[in-house]
Amino acid sequence: MNPMEHPPIVDRSPLHDFLAPNAIAVIGASPDPTKRGYKAMLGLVKDGFAGEIYPINPKLEHVLGVRAYPDLASLPGPIDLALICTPASTVPTLLRDCGEAGAKGAVILASGFGETGPEGAVLEHEVLAAAREAGVRLIGPNTSGIFNLHHKVNLLALENVRPGDIGIVSQSGNMLLSLALEAQHNGQVGFSTYVGPGNQTDIGFDDYLRYLGEDEKTRVATLYVEGFRDGRRFLDVARAVSAVKPVVVYKAGSTDLGQKAASSHTGALAGSYAMTVDLLRQSGVSVVQYSDEILPVAEGLGLLQQARGKRVAILADGGGQATIASDRLAEAGLELATLRDSTRQQLAEVLLPQASLANPVDVAGSSDANPSILAECMAILADDDDVDSVLLIGMFGGYHLRFAEELLGNEMRGAEAMIELDRRTDKPLVIYSLYAPVKPPALRRLHEAGLPVYHSIEHAVRVVAALGERGAYLHAMASPEWATTVTPHPGHQAVLARAHRERRDLLEPEAKALLGAHGLQVPEEKVVRSIDELGGIAEAFGDRSLAMKVVSKDILHKSDAGGVQLDLNGESALREAYTRILDTCRTHVPAADIEGILVTPMARKGTEVIIGMIRDPVFGPVLMFGLGGIFVEVLEDVAFRAIPLTRQDARSMVSQIKAKKVFEGIRGAVAIDQEALVDLLMKVSSIVSAYPEIESLDLNPVIAYADGYAVVDARIIVDNKASIQPEGDIT
Amino acid sequence: MNPMEHPPIVDRSPLHDFLAPNAIAVIGASPDPTKRGYKAMLGLVKDGFAGEIYPINPKLEHVLGVRAYPDLASLPGPIDLALICTPASTVPTLLRDCGEAGAKGAVILASGFGETGPEGAVLEHEVLAAAREAGVRLIGPNTSGIFNLHHKVNLLALENVRPGDIGIVSQSGNMLLSLALEAQHNGQVGFSTYVGPGNQTDIGFDDYLRYLGEDEKTRVATLYVEGFRDGRRFLDVARAVSAVKPVVVYKAGSTDLGQKAASSHTGALAGSYAMTVDLLRQSGVSVVQYSDEILPVAEGLGLLQQARGKRVAILADGGGQATIASDRLAEAGLELATLRDSTRQQLAEVLLPQASLANPVDVAGSSDANPSILAECMAILADDDDVDSVLLIGMFGGYHLRFAEELLGNEMRGAEAMIELDRRTDKPLVIYSLYAPVKPPALRRLHEAGLPVYHSIEHAVRVVAALGERGAYLHAMASPEWATTVTPHPGHQAVLARAHRERRDLLEPEAKALLGAHGLQVPEEKVVRSIDELGGIAEAFGDRSLAMKVVSKDILHKSDAGGVQLDLNGESALREAYTRILDTCRTHVPAADIEGILVTPMARKGTEVIIGMIRDPVFGPVLMFGLGGIFVEVLEDVAFRAIPLTRQDARSMVSQIKAKKVFEGIRGAVAIDQEALVDLLMKVSSIVSAYPEIESLDLNPVIAYADGYAVVDARIIVDNKASIQPEGDIT
Repeated sequence: MNPMEHPPIVDRSPLHDFLAPNAIAVIGASPDPTKRGYKAMLGLVKDGFAGEIYPINPKLEHVLGVRAYPDLASLPGPIDLALICTPASTVPTLLRDCGEAGAKGAVILASGFGETGPEGAVLEHEVLAAAREAGVRLIGPNTSGIFNLHHKVNLLALENVRPGDIGIVSQSGNMLLSLALEAQHNGQVGFSTYVGPGNQTDIGFDDYLRYLGEDEKTRVATLYVEGFRDGRRFLDVARAVSAVKPVVVYKAGSTDLGQKAASSHTGALAGSYAMTVDLLRQSGVSVVQYSDEILPVAEGLGLLQQARGKRVAILADGGGQATIASDRLAEAGLELATLRDSTRQQLAEVLLPQASLANPVDVAGSSDANPSILAECMAILADDDDVDSVLLIGMFGGYHLRFAEELLGNEMRGAEAMIELDRRTDKPLVIYSLYAPVKPPALRRLHEAGLPVYHSIEHAVRVVAALGERGAYLHAMASPEWATTVTPHPGHQAVLARAHRERRDLLEPEAKALLGAHGLQVPEEKVVRSIDELGGIAEAFGDRSLAMKVVSKDILHKSDAGGVQLDLNGESALREAYTRILDTCRTHVPAADIEGILVTPMARKGTEVIIGMIRDPVFGPVLMFGLGGIFVEVLEDVAFRAIPLTRQDARSMVSQIKAKKVFEGIRGAVAIDQEALVDLLMKVSSIVSAYPEIESLDLNPVIAYADGYAVVDARIIVDNKASIQPEGDIT
Repeated sequence: MNPMEHPPIVDRSPLHDFLAPNAIAVIGASPDPTKRGYKAMLGLVKDGFAGEIYPINPKLEHVLGVRAYPDLASLPGPIDLALICTPASTVPTLLRDCGEAGAKGAVILASGFGETGPEGAVLEHEVLAAAREAGVRLIGPNTSGIFNLHHKVNLLALENVRPGDIGIVSQSGNMLLSLALEAQHNGQVGFSTYVGPGNQTDIGFDDYLRYLGEDEKTRVATLYVEGFRDGRRFLDVARAVSAVKPVVVYKAGSTDLGQKAASSHTGALAGSYAMTVDLLRQSGVSVVQYSDEILPVAEGLGLLQQARGKRVAILADGGGQATIASDRLAEAGLELATLRDSTRQQLAEVLLPQASLANPVDVAGSSDANPSILAECMAILADDDDVDSVLLIGMFGGYHLRFAEELLGNEMRGAEAMIELDRRTDKPLVIYSLYAPVKPPALRRLHEAGLPVYHSIEHAVRVVAALGERGAYLHAMASPEWATTVTPHPGHQAVLARAHRERRDLLEPEAKALLGAHGLQVPEEKVVRSIDELGGIAEAFGDRSLAMKVVSKDILHKSDAGGVQLDLNGESALREAYTRILDTCRTHVPAADIEGILVTPMARKGTEVIIGMIRDPVFGPVLMFGLGGIFVEVLEDVAFRAIPLTRQDARSMVSQIKAKKVFEGIRGAVAIDQEALVDLLMKVSSIVSAYPEIESLDLNPVIAYADGYAVVDARIIVDNKASIQPEGDIT
């Protein structure tokens, strides 16, 4: 079993101790309604917090009728949590007092720390040191605060938010406010715990996610993230949590502009957006692309079954909206289910002759006088084994408004039938109604019974897609096939150690030898060190066309330095090329230490792909896969996965490439052996895990064939040293 | 001046005669509330239609208190419009009666025509013939109906829709209903005229758009389109209308699934989505990608100024949402304006020290106790000459709810200042508030004064983008540089005529000669017809490497038939290649009529692009541009424009390509001469306009260089004939 399969999360998160506190001190409690020290008191008092509330203010006897204390030392009993509303400079001293008062956690609202520059960073460091010494964990600084509505801890004093099962961690206070208002407006969604992680000085997203994963009141963990502090640990926690409940992430900074905006907002180190999204998805996270989809997707994932597959049945009472839904489904990578004959027959029995029984099913007026027929059709569709989810599109809930008031009873019966169906089927029923903004009775009833109703076709389809992705993830993780553990070879470890000592990368033949030793398909090759060896070489390779490449630690860009000669036939051509390579390389890089010349048969033509590995400062070892050349460089059409991989990960890397049609053979070209590439990715994952000395790795190009592949060039960079380039080298 | 610049729309649309009628007959008027014949009567009576209402029902004396008539012949006066609620089969006879009753138009609700199959198509044909004979124009059949709210003609009896300035033509009745409910919910948007074009048997989208363009009550024309009947005419009308008011189109069928769904819904012929979108944008249409953006974009375009450029200033009271907005801006191709120093200084004077004065401007608490400061900042930003539009992001309108009730007055003053700013500036102010769903007083005030407030950052940014695109379009069309008119050359017309007679394409040398005659850069080349000519040829081309290609009307795929030999040096190589080409071609295509062998110098290496022209059955002559090879075939990274082009069109074709970085030179390659490609596109446009005999054209590849380009291969297909391929040819 791979160590990544079960991240080592066995203890209960320490965050429970203060996110569900028994006694809270509000440091800087105030009677001024514009102050946070008032708001927090108001939230606690108004919501009826059952534990002890200790306002701290040396100038006041009471705040909002609660007895105030001059300082923490004067408190009559211990506290679990302190809310610090005072300025940044007061925090280090206060933290020491907090520790003495028994606090396990402190929420620091003040800004003016690392996010403002070097001076603030020093203060932030001091704060962290004080907290460690005092044994107090920190939320923030620079946070909008927290709430735990089920525990009546509403330190933001948000009004009109209902306790519910969506947990939120958001680096933007406005985003929390926006979600709360949307939920209030929606009327059915509620929240469990909210945390603003602020600068993540002590506690990071990983810790908060772990807490939400354990919190019984939280059914969906929802995160707005500008940057991760420890991305690798977050991935591990996400994998563990997403096995038991959905994790929804909106990652800010999808573009350079956004990244720039985010970095001026918080100090977090942000990896590339595309990579972050790939790694989050690999760990079971539902990544939301647009901010206005966060709540709909969280609600849907919390309430509805995940889907077993991508085959969607659309039931519509109008062709136009069915078309829109079909477009969005296809864009999201979903499919229209092909309905079974028996399903069509059953539909034909309940619908009018003009109904369209192909998917999308258009009832074409059949429901006008009998809207509950839609529930019957949904049941027929859900019972089709070739259907994974059912999407209802149209005006359900509003028939009595549009056609005749008498239809209300019929609609209510339809709603009950849908609720009944939802209880008995294991497939998601996703409902869009154009009457959703009006909240008619049948839709209110559905909502009450746990069936969300969306008022945007786009959002409804995003929910269908998220349920499908979650189903596919859980299915794949039910029996993951991890990259095997390989034992590092002492000889190659020695080569790596030597390169490290010599502060250089592996030479191409060294890299290929290492890869070949672990089963990668590398071409036959020989390194010659004198022109006299060429006669024997030409003979050894028979009549094949050959390529020659300079081998030198000092020449990274071989072609640019004139270090590559191709399509060579016969000894005299080899000799001529040998001399030419040495001459031009010595002209380009006079100080180059040339190890020899590599001779290898010309690779057969095929499809060029690139496989790379980097150790990302946030996410650790990450594998990259893409098509060669312009596809990687211009179109950035690449897939990333954290190492180690499962076979499912490797397969999804290959199938994720937008230009993947190339793999299937275009313009009469043959299809390549995709499973061989999958094996290759798995082996690279194993090698990287076995050799921590490998800092990064670049197989470029790998040529893929109908039968296997060839690693034509390979570069392995050792440790963390920068590549040393002698002056005069061209790059 | 190009004839396309002012489409020949001089008369007033005949649709005014019956879309603003004085007398209406409702054929099939009914007292049954579930019938459309009841709904229409209800709509007319309830809304207080001021003209004559004639219910037609032989079984009733009155319908809804209005005197009924047994048939049209019994009416006491003439009608302008008939609403036909009776079944399909009754329609032809009724149309004749309508004509006699003076009707200029008829709305046919019934389905059961062409959309159901061949039998229905026959009936539809019959209906059209009857209408023509009777002099009656047709709306539908298979339509949801019409309304003209300012004229109190509400034949759908929609409740709670406000008269306003958004005109709608929608092939989906549910989409209209959805927009109406959204508008009702939004509370500020209203509609002028709605038409469901149904099968477009007589009147198509082009006619309706022309009507909306002329209609004084309509400020924005909004269309949901599944398919155009006469796309070319629509483009012409769109160009004329978009010069005076915004045209918003949602085109269904963006994917194969959606196209399939749409085609089962109506019978319309739908071109490729990507092409349709490009052509609509070329004609000034604002194309909306998601259905839930239709109303927000229409509202914004109707109320706000278009932007002069892409430089957006974001003003936010929270960093997170500014980041989201920045991401969406960049995705939409917009830019964050670089603020002038004077702007920053002015902002610094009103904001707290911790505010971020770079764009996005984050007031960082400065507005908490004084929200109207946001209006001051908006004015400062709007006055910056390097800012084209201002986007306010955050909680404006809700400060008094979140912080202190006393702030309400301050917020109202802020709203007035924003309204004042909107009146004096020529830049759009786009406002997102997370409090929009709550509709607090300041936001209601903004809305009343014509400043929309969005409750989705995504929608707000789409509006900013649409205003920018409209501004850019109007700017470009203020001084369009049309492709010049060229005079066809009699010699080449004769060649085309001969190819037409012989039912073949132009031979490659014929095609290149035609193109070269009109100034395209085609390589020097000679056609040899006997091996003995090769000596002179080799000499003529000096020591350049040469390529040879078979010339035969029977061999389309020259490479596949062995008809191409490259990199030939010297006479003996030419002779050998000549023989090899003839031998292999005769093996592959025994019956091929071989005209000769084309000899030409090998083209220099460069960047391969493709230029094609097709005569689309819906949109007429369309030019396509893309990068060569895989980019066109796999990634479909191409741009389309209707011919004739303006220079701005040609430039935007080149800059639209996703892989356009390639043109700028990557991996050390030189940048290509993009303006030469622009010239080339303009010349191809001119040639296509001059030679209507050219059915399609394919320049593939064109090799682009730092200095000019070379048309390396060219194919011109004549007329409408299918290419005749002899048996045995491989393709």
